[in-house]
Amino acid sequence: MQPNSVIRTFKCIKNVSKIHSGTHRLFHKSTSNAIEFTSVRYPNLKRGQYSNVSDVDIAAFEKILPGAQRVITDASELEGYNTDWIKTCRGRSQVLLKPKETEEVSAILKICHERNLAVVPQGGNTGLVGGSVPVFDEIIISTQLMNTVISLDSLSGILTCQAGCILGNLNDYVSEHNLTMPLDLGAKGSCHIGGNLATNAGGVRLLRYGSLHGSVLGLEAVLPDGEVLDCMSSLRKDNTGYDLKQLFIGSEGTLGIITAASILCPQKSQAVNVAFLGVDSFDRVLEVFKESKHQLAEILSAFEFLDSEALAVCTDNLKLNSPLSSHPFYVLIETSGSNSAHDEEKLNTFLESMMDAGKVLDGTVVAEPTKIQYIWGLRERVAEGLMHDGYCYKYDVSLPLSAFYQLVTDMRARIGSKATRVIGYGHVGDGNLHFNVTSPQYDPEVMALIEPFIYDWVANYKGSISAEHGLGFKKREYIYHSKSRSAVKMMKALKTLVDPNGILNPYKFLPDH
Amino acid sequence: MQPNSVIRTFKCIKNVSKIHSGTHRLFHKSTSNAIEFTSVRYPNLKRGQYSNVSDVDIAAFEKILPGAQRVITDASELEGYNTDWIKTCRGRSQVLLKPKETEEVSAILKICHERNLAVVPQGGNTGLVGGSVPVFDEIIISTQLMNTVISLDSLSGILTCQAGCILGNLNDYVSEHNLTMPLDLGAKGSCHIGGNLATNAGGVRLLRYGSLHGSVLGLEAVLPDGEVLDCMSSLRKDNTGYDLKQLFIGSEGTLGIITAASILCPQKSQAVNVAFLGVDSFDRVLEVFKESKHQLAEILSAFEFLDSEALAVCTDNLKLNSPLSSHPFYVLIETSGSNSAHDEEKLNTFLESMMDAGKVLDGTVVAEPTKIQYIWGLRERVAEGLMHDGYCYKYDVSLPLSAFYQLVTDMRARIGSKATRVIGYGHVGDGNLHFNVTSPQYDPEVMALIEPFIYDWVANYKGSISAEHGLGFKKREYIYHSKSRSAVKMMKALKTLVDPNGILNPYKFLPDH
Repeated sequence: MQPNSVIRTFKCIKNVSKIHSGTHRLFHKSTSNAIEFTSVRYPNLKRGQYSNVSDVDIAAFEKILPGAQRVITDASELEGYNTDWIKTCRGRSQVLLKPKETEEVSAILKICHERNLAVVPQGGNTGLVGGSVPVFDEIIISTQLMNTVISLDSLSGILTCQAGCILGNLNDYVSEHNLTMPLDLGAKGSCHIGGNLATNAGGVRLLRYGSLHGSVLGLEAVLPDGEVLDCMSSLRKDNTGYDLKQLFIGSEGTLGIITAASILCPQKSQAVNVAFLGVDSFDRVLEVFKESKHQLAEILSAFEFLDSEALAVCTDNLKLNSPLSSHPFYVLIETSGSNSAHDEEKLNTFLESMMDAGKVLDGTVVAEPTKIQYIWGLRERVAEGLMHDGYCYKYDVSLPLSAFYQLVTDMRARIGSKATRVIGYGHVGDGNLHFNVTSPQYDPEVMALIEPFIYDWVANYKGSISAEHGLGFKKREYIYHSKSRSAVKMMKALKTLVDPNGILNPYKFLPDH
Repeated sequence: MQPNSVIRTFKCIKNVSKIHSGTHRLFHKSTSNAIEFTSVRYPNLKRGQYSNVSDVDIAAFEKILPGAQRVITDASELEGYNTDWIKTCRGRSQVLLKPKETEEVSAILKICHERNLAVVPQGGNTGLVGGSVPVFDEIIISTQLMNTVISLDSLSGILTCQAGCILGNLNDYVSEHNLTMPLDLGAKGSCHIGGNLATNAGGVRLLRYGSLHGSVLGLEAVLPDGEVLDCMSSLRKDNTGYDLKQLFIGSEGTLGIITAASILCPQKSQAVNVAFLGVDSFDRVLEVFKESKHQLAEILSAFEFLDSEALAVCTDNLKLNSPLSSHPFYVLIETSGSNSAHDEEKLNTFLESMMDAGKVLDGTVVAEPTKIQYIWGLRERVAEGLMHDGYCYKYDVSLPLSAFYQLVTDMRARIGSKATRVIGYGHVGDGNLHFNVTSPQYDPEVMALIEPFIYDWVANYKGSISAEHGLGFKKREYIYHSKSRSAVKMMKALKTLVDPNGILNPYKFLPDH
């Protein structure tokens, strides 16, 4: 079977847009003034007993960071760094610091430790739970200028780089050496690898290459008192002592500031195919998934889905064209392998069997890079498209596949016409649902319909209330819905051990009580 | 190309032996009386200030563990549990406990905590660094009876089981559901999954499926005071709080006793091929490796090597036949995929190119399971074969590939004729060298030639002094050769936080000073 014989040809590729570049910057600059301060929206939250930044502190920072534009105190320049890109959190920091070297981060934190100054580490500021922006007046330490690739061993595939390298740039770089980054996500054009590590970013390649807990081989972090914790390594195996770096992966900047890392990069695939398919129910989505694991096996690199409302976000708000007619659900399957003829044969045999069985109603297969990028855009740009509705209530949950989509239908029934949209999409292959509700502006009534109901619902099905976005500012109080008392108790003991004064990313991650 | 046309046919499969079953038990029963007590061999080591087990304690344990054969105090029965299977460490424990449930482990540790009794957790007792046997009279808590599979979700591939399940049995079980365990190692017939997790076992599939830090989704452990730490989860993504389970993976029983885990199992491969190749230098081994990563890519599941001395261990000591004539080095390549025709085409094209380029001199390819098992036996039974020489000085290091085999040649020159054998083999694909020296019995002169020279050598090349075996009793003093002062300082703080009295697996893992 040729792709074009059974599967409809791809008919509407035009205006292939640059998906990621500039998106976040746009939000930074244009919209922050309209956003309520976090401290106003959450009036019960009290500022911690931290010192205020003094002129003496500023002078000390300027000594550590010589040269222009590395100690920023201008309010308008700070605005974008004070506000998260989905316009839901806004802090009042008056100082932004841009170190270039680990030693500078260490010197800064030594001062903050001595002076009891609170700090928020910030990478690309693409987080979705308010974790990367200040809540009150925390000093922002940005990794923006820490963007050097330290080394790449093309035989072993081990990349070592500073924390501020942009994920997409790293992927371009290792690509030239026939390698690929083990993670990929919509924000790749802006997000920093250090932020990816700090939030244990998942994304669309996790199905194939696993989590960062497996891919990260070494890590360097500066502890809250300024000590440099050196866990750097360029070895695939090293069983000498507790694997401390793992604690920092997903710690959301609360234990230390990640300054560098070594990452294992898999071989770049010679052949990539993307199929975009229309199916008539979520049960069908699962049947297609099950069969794809069996038939596509080692070449399956992504299995994503969108409901019809999620695709409508792209077609309505971003004016993207869908290559398919209307269906209740859409599946995006990516294969990556070393032999295009073998991969195409596997994919075509698979798709033919799905069409013959009536499980797939319609579809298109593309192999040309710009067309692949376009199809991926329909999936990856949903988050951006949602912003056009106004305010977005954003949830990111893990659920057993048996209960996966029921959350969306239950929430739709509950919220009714009070929201602009209630949609579900995401990483079926990893059991990770992105559930989103939009309204013209922040509406406490809509919020009250969603929370805490959604967390109870997810806990009831033994899911996770945050699959990959983390807890940040917005979800920390709900940690007990996904973690045991014994685990949270140990987490708090760890935090106290490493950051006894709590100066690193306060008001985030762990609940106060 | 057909396998048989260019590559020599497999000519000598006979007497395919059961590789793993019974091996360890044999060593337990037959040889322990001849082994020096650890406390005698290391006279400078002092017993910690722990209580002695009393009759009241025994009675309490018997109450917690009712029924026969769960509180063992008979000296001859204890002998195998007091001695490691490579006959290098021997403790004097007088009590062995066999809980079946987490709650029983918890009740036992509550008593040990209150009474200040030291404990050594033990799985299959297949460890190679003296980590799983007592040094003095620690109470042995065996996971032998905690061998229940709790659940398996065949769609997501998530297995949940108790810690005492034997790895090989788990693999047989998930195999029936078209899945495979993400790790495989020579001791699979005896080792417990809990011990695998506690030592972060690597093995021969790491190249393909990554480390346990990526594959383990959930974990339950009992802390030193008896509290049950519940980090169980059956989700691929869960970013809610510090990933505590990671701390226990590779902690060698010093933070808690692992009682259960959830593990992500990949799809079982429909097609498996093994090639065994003869090459004339280690540089050629690396060239073949580099090209295999490129050409075999997603189907490459193992890349192992043996030097001629390592193969001789199998042919001389175990009387196994090699399918190849004599060569300086041998490479074992395994491919695993979903389509046998595709895989064979890839493998044959690859091997033909290697033969044409003169990089591979000779070889054989097998696809039939018993033949695959036989070839794997030549690699996996080296450790067993070494025991026949008498005493084995066992090292397991990670090194950059550029310096990988030089360690063996340097050590051979240094040790000369004082040893029976000096050999190198292992996981080239992971940068992991198994380096072994044998002599008729333990010889302090040979030991003095090896240590600390080998650790300095490895540190000089920025390798790891323990790639996958861990530190245990024998290597803890050398941790600084692979880990920074800042890292070891934090490790010690963590140990003190979780186990302030140091009752869990004392004299192991971290150095005293």
